[in-house]
Amino acid sequence: MKLKYNIILMLVFISFLGVQNLKAQEHPSLILTKSGVQKIRKELGNVPLFDKTVALVKAEVDAEIELGIDTPIPKDYSGGYTHEKHKRNFLMLQKAGVLFQVLQDEKYAIYVRDMLFQYEKMYKDLPPHPQTRSYARGKLFWQCLNDSNWLVYVSQAYDCVYDWLSKKERKKLEKNLLRPFADYISVENPQFFNRVHNHSTWGNAAVGMLGLVMNDKELISRALYGIKDDGLAIGAKDNDGGFIKTVGQKAGFLANIDEPFSPDGYYTEGPYYQRYAMYPFLVFAEALANVKPDLKIFEYKNKVLLNSVNALLNLTNAKGEFFPLNDGQKGMSYYSRELVTAVDVAYYYGGLNPQLLSIAQKQNKVVLSDAGLETAMAIRDHKAVHFKKKSINLSDGPDGQQGGVGVLRSGNEDLTLVFKYSAQGSSHGHYDKLSYSLYEKGTEIIQDYGLARFVNIEQKGGGNYLKENKTWAKQSIAHNTITQNETSHFNGKYEIGSKHHSDLVFYEDTNPNLQIISAKESNAYSNTLLQRTMAIVKVLGIAKPLVIDVMKVVSKEKNQYDLPVYFKGQIISTNFKYNLPQVLKPLGAKNGYQHLWLEGTGKPSSYNSKVSFLNQSKFYTITATTNNNDELLFTRIGANDSEFNLRRDAGFMIRRKNTASTTFASIIEPHGSYSYVSEFSVDSKSHVSDLEVIADSEAYTAISFKVKNEATNLLIIANQKTSKETEHTLKIKDKTYHWQGAYHYKQTQTK
Amino acid sequence: MKLKYNIILMLVFISFLGVQNLKAQEHPSLILTKSGVQKIRKELGNVPLFDKTVALVKAEVDAEIELGIDTPIPKDYSGGYTHEKHKRNFLMLQKAGVLFQVLQDEKYAIYVRDMLFQYEKMYKDLPPHPQTRSYARGKLFWQCLNDSNWLVYVSQAYDCVYDWLSKKERKKLEKNLLRPFADYISVENPQFFNRVHNHSTWGNAAVGMLGLVMNDKELISRALYGIKDDGLAIGAKDNDGGFIKTVGQKAGFLANIDEPFSPDGYYTEGPYYQRYAMYPFLVFAEALANVKPDLKIFEYKNKVLLNSVNALLNLTNAKGEFFPLNDGQKGMSYYSRELVTAVDVAYYYGGLNPQLLSIAQKQNKVVLSDAGLETAMAIRDHKAVHFKKKSINLSDGPDGQQGGVGVLRSGNEDLTLVFKYSAQGSSHGHYDKLSYSLYEKGTEIIQDYGLARFVNIEQKGGGNYLKENKTWAKQSIAHNTITQNETSHFNGKYEIGSKHHSDLVFYEDTNPNLQIISAKESNAYSNTLLQRTMAIVKVLGIAKPLVIDVMKVVSKEKNQYDLPVYFKGQIISTNFKYNLPQVLKPLGAKNGYQHLWLEGTGKPSSYNSKVSFLNQSKFYTITATTNNNDELLFTRIGANDSEFNLRRDAGFMIRRKNTASTTFASIIEPHGSYSYVSEFSVDSKSHVSDLEVIADSEAYTAISFKVKNEATNLLIIANQKTSKETEHTLKIKDKTYHWQGAYHYKQTQTK
Repeated sequence: MKLKYNIILMLVFISFLGVQNLKAQEHPSLILTKSGVQKIRKELGNVPLFDKTVALVKAEVDAEIELGIDTPIPKDYSGGYTHEKHKRNFLMLQKAGVLFQVLQDEKYAIYVRDMLFQYEKMYKDLPPHPQTRSYARGKLFWQCLNDSNWLVYVSQAYDCVYDWLSKKERKKLEKNLLRPFADYISVENPQFFNRVHNHSTWGNAAVGMLGLVMNDKELISRALYGIKDDGLAIGAKDNDGGFIKTVGQKAGFLANIDEPFSPDGYYTEGPYYQRYAMYPFLVFAEALANVKPDLKIFEYKNKVLLNSVNALLNLTNAKGEFFPLNDGQKGMSYYSRELVTAVDVAYYYGGLNPQLLSIAQKQNKVVLSDAGLETAMAIRDHKAVHFKKKSINLSDGPDGQQGGVGVLRSGNEDLTLVFKYSAQGSSHGHYDKLSYSLYEKGTEIIQDYGLARFVNIEQKGGGNYLKENKTWAKQSIAHNTITQNETSHFNGKYEIGSKHHSDLVFYEDTNPNLQIISAKESNAYSNTLLQRTMAIVKVLGIAKPLVIDVMKVVSKEKNQYDLPVYFKGQIISTNFKYNLPQVLKPLGAKNGYQHLWLEGTGKPSSYNSKVSFLNQSKFYTITATTNNNDELLFTRIGANDSEFNLRRDAGFMIRRKNTASTTFASIIEPHGSYSYVSEFSVDSKSHVSDLEVIADSEAYTAISFKVKNEATNLLIIANQKTSKETEHTLKIKDKTYHWQGAYHYKQTQTK
Repeated sequence: MKLKYNIILMLVFISFLGVQNLKAQEHPSLILTKSGVQKIRKELGNVPLFDKTVALVKAEVDAEIELGIDTPIPKDYSGGYTHEKHKRNFLMLQKAGVLFQVLQDEKYAIYVRDMLFQYEKMYKDLPPHPQTRSYARGKLFWQCLNDSNWLVYVSQAYDCVYDWLSKKERKKLEKNLLRPFADYISVENPQFFNRVHNHSTWGNAAVGMLGLVMNDKELISRALYGIKDDGLAIGAKDNDGGFIKTVGQKAGFLANIDEPFSPDGYYTEGPYYQRYAMYPFLVFAEALANVKPDLKIFEYKNKVLLNSVNALLNLTNAKGEFFPLNDGQKGMSYYSRELVTAVDVAYYYGGLNPQLLSIAQKQNKVVLSDAGLETAMAIRDHKAVHFKKKSINLSDGPDGQQGGVGVLRSGNEDLTLVFKYSAQGSSHGHYDKLSYSLYEKGTEIIQDYGLARFVNIEQKGGGNYLKENKTWAKQSIAHNTITQNETSHFNGKYEIGSKHHSDLVFYEDTNPNLQIISAKESNAYSNTLLQRTMAIVKVLGIAKPLVIDVMKVVSKEKNQYDLPVYFKGQIISTNFKYNLPQVLKPLGAKNGYQHLWLEGTGKPSSYNSKVSFLNQSKFYTITATTNNNDELLFTRIGANDSEFNLRRDAGFMIRRKNTASTTFASIIEPHGSYSYVSEFSVDSKSHVSDLEVIADSEAYTAISFKVKNEATNLLIIANQKTSKETEHTLKIKDKTYHWQGAYHYKQTQTK
């Protein structure tokens, strides 16, 4: 239904473009408007955050002008001089253009003009970039992606000096540099331009924004709807292994909104790439809103672009760092330049939500645009309200029907559980169905590895993806989820993984004492069904909430199941004996196992196996149900890592062999603290015991555990009939339980 | 000379105590005085930092009173309930006593009285503590040390309620609890009390402070001068391997000032234990200053107690954390309660140095005493001045003749080099002659491992020293210094190590562009002389200063030398090839080598071997001279670590086999930065090249290197004649150099 609606909307757009002649164009008009600039000039000196940003940008650009212009012959990968210089150039051009508008000082226009003509001189005869790794080589950079970055920024610079340049100058620039540049990244590289991928979004925005400045109908249409006859073969792949074209594939900017974004604003590649793509999405949208307001781009697909900013802000830990779902570099956060733009644009074009202002305050800068001015003025006028991150369940897929990501939060981000049951996530997806990570405030407790790459650090593989991204980071065993028979989900095959997604069973976050999510995955392994239920529970008698984890595996065949937990910190104690080998060997030969050193091997000493660790002055204990045949493995990442590309991080793994259906239950218990200054150790021991799976059928799974050896806690999960209205009756060990809804939770204080 | 002076002073003290009858005693008089209390009461409400501390302490004690009194039968090691409870009790008693004086609320006196009588009831029949690990078991705690802690604090509580108690109550407490308690930790445990050791300092202070409260001449004399006939055997050792009694050993509080403190105030065990010992030193001194002002205890040994506070504050990184020299737990800092007392006492009794106030401000609390009030009032009156940490060279040994510790600082703690050439450091000493560590601001770049212990975390060996402290942390290979033939300095033998110390060759910190220290060690290995020279140099053309390291080894015999660098961070690049083994094996079988996994092995590809790493968003490169026969080893701590007691930290080691005399030269180069938010990588590559040892003789060692392939830098070190006046002439490769003083440094900007 939603798709159909979008197609109709697209047709309306097309006819709109076709029928109406484009009017003579005002400049600037992309992120600044004529009236906006007037207002900015009027307010200069009266809006602290805007003024501060102007001063910062001015200092930066002035220093750059002082250094002189350099447009070196392209040569390097990212991290290398020519790459970083051209990158710096486009950022400076955009800033100089804006400063010209804001400060009316001609030196900035001259700088933009001179640099553009230097590029004009070089570009005419420039061959494709000498580095050949990319499926779509750029000219200034090794990939069209970065060339597109350049044009997205340079279009803005050109917009700012457009009226100041002579007609002759404009003609020369457009003929020799800008038009050919736009053609190169689109019609000459359809395999880059005509996809649904963050790469193409940049390409679309670049071509479209130049089209808007030049008032070029054809470029705008190409940007919005893609190239009609791209001549691409179905099934071709890029150098990351992603599909270039699939059957029925649409293209262009609108298609790039339709497909990767769910209605909730979740972007299928994950937050790291959503952040990256956000900038072209929002600046091109902003430009369309200014130049073509009738298109109502921000209304498109139920305001999905605005929703996506909200989704993205909710996909951060307490430090503002994005959860590294799929390929994500840790440390990237809402302090990035893309999010400064995103927050200001979402504020200005999205109904002036005052919570966004508190994020802008933390960012401590604004974008120099109409949106940034309004944001800074609102902050000045004390309109900011705390951005409250709550638990949230974000659907994945164009129609929100392809699984999703649940984030359970307890307290003021005291505990944050990130649960992934999404679709594959395009070529940046990892094979980690039903995986999770856990944070206490901004600190990782159970980590997701993230990507294996040092973005823009040239010494590490040109700053590009390292081979360990594929051999380790994407593999199932690198994640906190089940690996069956030492083989990754979907056999680690993108073609298969892309066809499937996990499914939500139920999600409830209304009770602050028990928030719960359950999802199932039936395609990761043929003949095996996985269902995982995770909950954050506040239990009587314990200061901090617990995390309950119930991983149910249903299979008719006997398999080996490995369930790792990549905890952060140092082991304090275990309740079982283990041996440290005299010699460390890799745990396996492939599918990521070749990167794990086996650091220790133990056997359960009771039906609960416990591991306690200390992480940044806080204690945590994992209590897991285990049986006599289970193996308890301690692992360390780093085997077969010939260039020290991987972090030497620890893992604890339960291995259950020769088993058909089974259920893994565990509790992650944050408790106590240690001070390196007072040397007091407080509440350093676990309070959880007697964890048991007391019932387990197709219909129901139930676990119980004790707290402080007395209070019994019971959780029954309805695996199938999960509506809120359904009434359930279940007899467990002579006791009959009756409840309504997807789960039943009961605490008995025995004393 | 200094020793003789002290002995005379001691005789004066003894005669003073002998001749003069002790006068009737005022109460309180230890850390509070009658007039001080009057002043405090008058100022209450007018001194923000003092008032804040009172409010905090009141809230804490009130909550404790609410909980009720518990004095459990002693049972546990540290970290366990009974240990932690008795520890909490003595802290609370002291605080309650002070609150009674300050607030005049009887409930605090009642609390102190009731708890003391509960202890009185228990103590009479209490046997030694059931845990037997200590050479001197306490009664409330597993070691007399902790019992002494108890009495140091409880004496103060008793002092505060002394006048409020009835004579009969006092008599009962003194007869059944306090006097026997003092006797138990002294005359009944002379092996604990009569040493020169931080343990004994606590014992001495405990007995002495009780003596002062009770006006008991005998206890005071015992505290100051030790037990006359202790009957201890020469050569006996404690459970940490430290000597209990050596020939000619003095004892008592004054001996514990004389011996472990150098005239500069460096405490031979290292800053972590200096911090621990500081409290009894300073509170007992404070009490003596109040009750026996004529003793002029703060003048003793040229004000060494006051100097020691200054020394200790200078032995911290930019975060205020103590350098973990010898046995030191990382993270301990000048925010500890001991340092709050130390800083306030040093301010009040040490001439009102306003720089100390800035530390007290950071601590954000004061001790509730006369000293604390003055400190807080001075802060209120805006007298605080920034505590400027400069480069400092602290001598070790009672007369300052047993080596020392040099701290070179560049900028505002931008770079801090800690160079150790001290004496053994008592039983807490490590076998790491001429070792170093390096910090950028508060961040470790080249780490010293510190101790192998989780203080007060019961699960980890009762919170006590772990066996890995001896098998790893103390061994030479665990440190950034030379290990010869895989054997630790002095063969890891305390008896031998204690007889020796390194010697300063020269130290100069007056030129901010080149600070330099050189020391030699001739006893760590027989027939081998080590001399290490380290410098922080600001070099033209590079933003950040460099660290130069020249380790000269002189031996007639051929040996194997291992020189490790325990860098923090992840490897970014090397200029040589290395192999990662398929299986990890320990590097050796003993002397610490059994704890190192060999993670990689390489051979130099040129006469300079380079390793670059990234640590907390900053780049560093080590450039070292190597020859074709050198082995380049990557190590990881953690082999034979059967309980995960050690951190899995990385090391890089140069191994030079079958070599007699040789010199290792290297440069540690901090450069550039990386942002995980902007993803810009700035200045990520080393600028140093062509490092060479261009001359090396008994008299001189010279190195040269290039910066940015053009500027040549030359450093000549005079190894023997190091006076500032001496003139030197040296010909190297047809060039003649002429200079005055211990070293010559020259930069040639070739372009």
